Amino acid sequence: MKIGIAQINSIAGDFAGNAKKILSAYHEAVNKGAELVVTPELSLFGYPLLDLVLKKSFLQEGFDVLEKLCENIGEVGLLVGYVDVNHIGTEGAVEKLYRNAAALIQNQEIMGRVYKTLIPKYDVYDQQHYFEPSKKCEPLRYNGHKIGVLIGEDLWYDDLLDRPLFDRDPAAELKNNRAQMLINMSASHFQVGKPQFKANLFEVIACGTNLPLVCCNAVGGNEQFIFDGHSLLLDPNGNALVQLPGFVEAVEVGDVTLDGTDAPVIVGKSIEHIYKALILGIKDYTNKLGFEKAIIGLSGGIDSAVTLALAVEALGADNVKAMTLPSRYSEPSGIADALSLAYTLKVECDSISITKTFDHILESLNDVLGSLPEDRTEENIQSRLRSLFMMAASNKHGYLPLSTINKTDMFTGNYTVYGDNCMGMSVLGDVPKKVVYKLADYINRDSEIISKSIIDKVPSPELAKGQLDDHVVPSYRVVDSIIEYYVIYGLSASEIVNDFGFNESDVYWVQKRIDLNAWKRLQTPPVLRVTSPGYGRGRRIPITQGYIKSLKL
Amino acid sequence: MKIGIAQINSIAGDFAGNAKKILSAYHEAVNKGAELVVTPELSLFGYPLLDLVLKKSFLQEGFDVLEKLCENIGEVGLLVGYVDVNHIGTEGAVEKLYRNAAALIQNQEIMGRVYKTLIPKYDVYDQQHYFEPSKKCEPLRYNGHKIGVLIGEDLWYDDLLDRPLFDRDPAAELKNNRAQMLINMSASHFQVGKPQFKANLFEVIACGTNLPLVCCNAVGGNEQFIFDGHSLLLDPNGNALVQLPGFVEAVEVGDVTLDGTDAPVIVGKSIEHIYKALILGIKDYTNKLGFEKAIIGLSGGIDSAVTLALAVEALGADNVKAMTLPSRYSEPSGIADALSLAYTLKVECDSISITKTFDHILESLNDVLGSLPEDRTEENIQSRLRSLFMMAASNKHGYLPLSTINKTDMFTGNYTVYGDNCMGMSVLGDVPKKVVYKLADYINRDSEIISKSIIDKVPSPELAKGQLDDHVVPSYRVVDSIIEYYVIYGLSASEIVNDFGFNESDVYWVQKRIDLNAWKRLQTPPVLRVTSPGYGRGRRIPITQGYIKSLKL
Repeated sequence: MKIGIAQINSIAGDFAGNAKKILSAYHEAVNKGAELVVTPELSLFGYPLLDLVLKKSFLQEGFDVLEKLCENIGEVGLLVGYVDVNHIGTEGAVEKLYRNAAALIQNQEIMGRVYKTLIPKYDVYDQQHYFEPSKKCEPLRYNGHKIGVLIGEDLWYDDLLDRPLFDRDPAAELKNNRAQMLINMSASHFQVGKPQFKANLFEVIACGTNLPLVCCNAVGGNEQFIFDGHSLLLDPNGNALVQLPGFVEAVEVGDVTLDGTDAPVIVGKSIEHIYKALILGIKDYTNKLGFEKAIIGLSGGIDSAVTLALAVEALGADNVKAMTLPSRYSEPSGIADALSLAYTLKVECDSISITKTFDHILESLNDVLGSLPEDRTEENIQSRLRSLFMMAASNKHGYLPLSTINKTDMFTGNYTVYGDNCMGMSVLGDVPKKVVYKLADYINRDSEIISKSIIDKVPSPELAKGQLDDHVVPSYRVVDSIIEYYVIYGLSASEIVNDFGFNESDVYWVQKRIDLNAWKRLQTPPVLRVTSPGYGRGRRIPITQGYIKSLKL
Repeated sequence: MKIGIAQINSIAGDFAGNAKKILSAYHEAVNKGAELVVTPELSLFGYPLLDLVLKKSFLQEGFDVLEKLCENIGEVGLLVGYVDVNHIGTEGAVEKLYRNAAALIQNQEIMGRVYKTLIPKYDVYDQQHYFEPSKKCEPLRYNGHKIGVLIGEDLWYDDLLDRPLFDRDPAAELKNNRAQMLINMSASHFQVGKPQFKANLFEVIACGTNLPLVCCNAVGGNEQFIFDGHSLLLDPNGNALVQLPGFVEAVEVGDVTLDGTDAPVIVGKSIEHIYKALILGIKDYTNKLGFEKAIIGLSGGIDSAVTLALAVEALGADNVKAMTLPSRYSEPSGIADALSLAYTLKVECDSISITKTFDHILESLNDVLGSLPEDRTEENIQSRLRSLFMMAASNKHGYLPLSTINKTDMFTGNYTVYGDNCMGMSVLGDVPKKVVYKLADYINRDSEIISKSIIDKVPSPELAKGQLDDHVVPSYRVVDSIIEYYVIYGLSASEIVNDFGFNESDVYWVQKRIDLNAWKRLQTPPVLRVTSPGYGRGRRIPITQGYIKSLKL
């Protein structure tokens, strides 16, 4: 049977727009000979919907569009994702109001429905807040065949992963119920290495069940998630017969009865994936919010340079505006680097000194600040003044302001709250500093866009005389490693010191900065997610807590 | 049996501090004749712990302190709340790593353990993220009696509530298993009307089971929650024999074998509860974060006046600092009102004009702003400049800056992001504007603290000439009602217009403002929660969504 894979980019709640997109992909696939067309998880309703589903009129509007969609579907079937209501039964301890569902449409009618079985509730996922799991996994009947449809994580059997979250294996249940092929409709987000990981997982599942496997994954940036596409069609030997590209919409048709070939699964390099994911994330976040243009503050440092290059690639040079806001502590060479980068990227750049305004503020605050020595206060004033200038340009001209703070600084709170991190969206907030350097190298792969002097300089916020990051914090490479052990692997400070040989004071410094800065992280702009565990709402540490007392330093 | 109720204020993760508090309350109750002492839910570990439980060393430290606590407990038993690990079995679809647990300690040993059965996952609660529900409800044996212990919501049987979340009734299960009394250990947060609601609920449960009922509730502000105490001891006829006060720590002993009396359940008025809850919230949030002093910006309006009065009551006048930051648009009478209020409350108040700095910034930004007409840009600059001044004072002197934005303005985004709402904590962020006026009346109950001219003036941000809130938005009373129908009851705009007779343009205005401002709400400081549904993280609407297109206007 020829399967059409419609790897589309849906918008949460834009029923009419999503339906149009689905129909267009459906017709394209039918023209290419498809006998059944698959779309991603929640393709008609979009994802994540969060509390939109609680609006009484919301679901009804979606159902109306689903009905209209049916009228356009003929003999070639279509699998489409939507949210169904849950008809509460008498069994089970807790019943949720909704279901993450898929409908099989053929000849103007819904011929069958399936519901997601393994509902994620970990890290940033909280689908369990809304969706009741399916209690049985039965194949759908289609043109005399039995087709096993799996939504999202239903395919992700625990034995293949290092996480005992679920003890059901829907793929095996479907195989036991005589499914002749498996179709996975997913909205699976990108993180570093995940395309390769998923390709391996799918191979194992196809071989393990000895069934053809079609994986149709969504594409597009939504909230902090970037769905990366990379849809696949595999034969029962795990060979990839059809591979859709990453980070763009695409429609392809493949035949599940073909013999396997030896075509290896091809996935790009991690850094290329991160680059493409961030570009898609910037583009979709900006445009789905209704913005066309973005504005970025350039310091002459690596973070803002990389952010600018990514934004130009995502939105075009004409749609990106840069500003440099030098203070008396700014090195003239840094400003020159910033202006030169903007020139290379053909981006218009304003340069406005904050020095006089800063002096004026100090004068106004003379009675408040008194004769106390200079400290973080004066540094923060400069950072907040810069964001005030940026936001003024944003307000006046309708630019989306992009934050340039990287993940390492986010985690350790190495930025000024309400200052350099208060923008509409954070581009690098989930990219560790060491990866920012790799991105710069990747951006320079064909020619030098980001200059050597930007890449080589020691990072500095330039908020006080001669200030360098290395004077205040351990080196970025050390901080990144400690964050990894502390946050990702959950090790204690003494384990990190004893087992991995880090300097004790560095480890305690990082640990304390991470835990003390929960209140700052709470107020950051939305962050594009590319690593695991992400920076954003997936990490929950209380702000008012006493455990911090037991941490040294 | 004489039951000691230890209504204590724990701090999340402060094991040693909490153990000390528990022991002190234990000894006080034993001295008063208690034969069994009860503490609140998670009393030893604190609540909410969120991702702290994921730290490997965290739980071990808690267990060590639990062990030490045991050594101090003699013949009189102690019920204490903690987090246990979950030994994953083979049943059930999803198993969580931890359990919300209580231990019964006697004669230096843990004699029994119980686990929470009904794990909340709605609104702001996400205990299901961490805790596996108990599968059976068995009474504990204690001195020849059978005692049914219920943790938190275990007591909240769905048939008594308008929410079919759980289909188990642990109180009935315990009764069937021959429990002779019920003890509820809870950390139940305050919202308007809840003390009365809970008193009614407890009466129904005591009568329904025909068992004595002891409810020991935590007290104290933690994150956005304010646990309100109001612990109770009821006889099987639902009569309250012992009532602990609201919003303060207390230890009382009551006898569950006493005959019932006709003492009615006494709870205070809603406005008094909101007042006390906010005071406790300000005090605990400030002190648990390690601050002693707070700073508040006074505009001469009602929101900042009420915030100042609450802060003075919570922290003492010596620990509160005020600032007025007039611009050229500020009415001199408003500044006079602000200074007069500070004088009445004996609070030191600095007054610093932002006019010159504002002019200076406009001059610096001349090239960026060009000759475009004045608009929101210039208003936002002033608001952000004020917050910059406030944060400078906070940084230099270590004051916790308190936001004065009310819930009505929060929901409709009627504030400047990174401006007047960027502070360490929001006092009124969950208090609708109409309730702010009621709080002002309550504050003035004995003498006029907040002047009539503050209460009577039409609200205005004073960011442009002659600007009044009523020029831009529908009146607060109308907005508050529409928010209630739209957010709390989930009605559509047309239902609100047709069924409740509101002006169509007002309804669409409110609806659009609420949905469009998701990105601003994401970046607000933590909000003290007092109503339902709260403002904070309990409402999740995507930022990049297309459903907004279907909303008119």
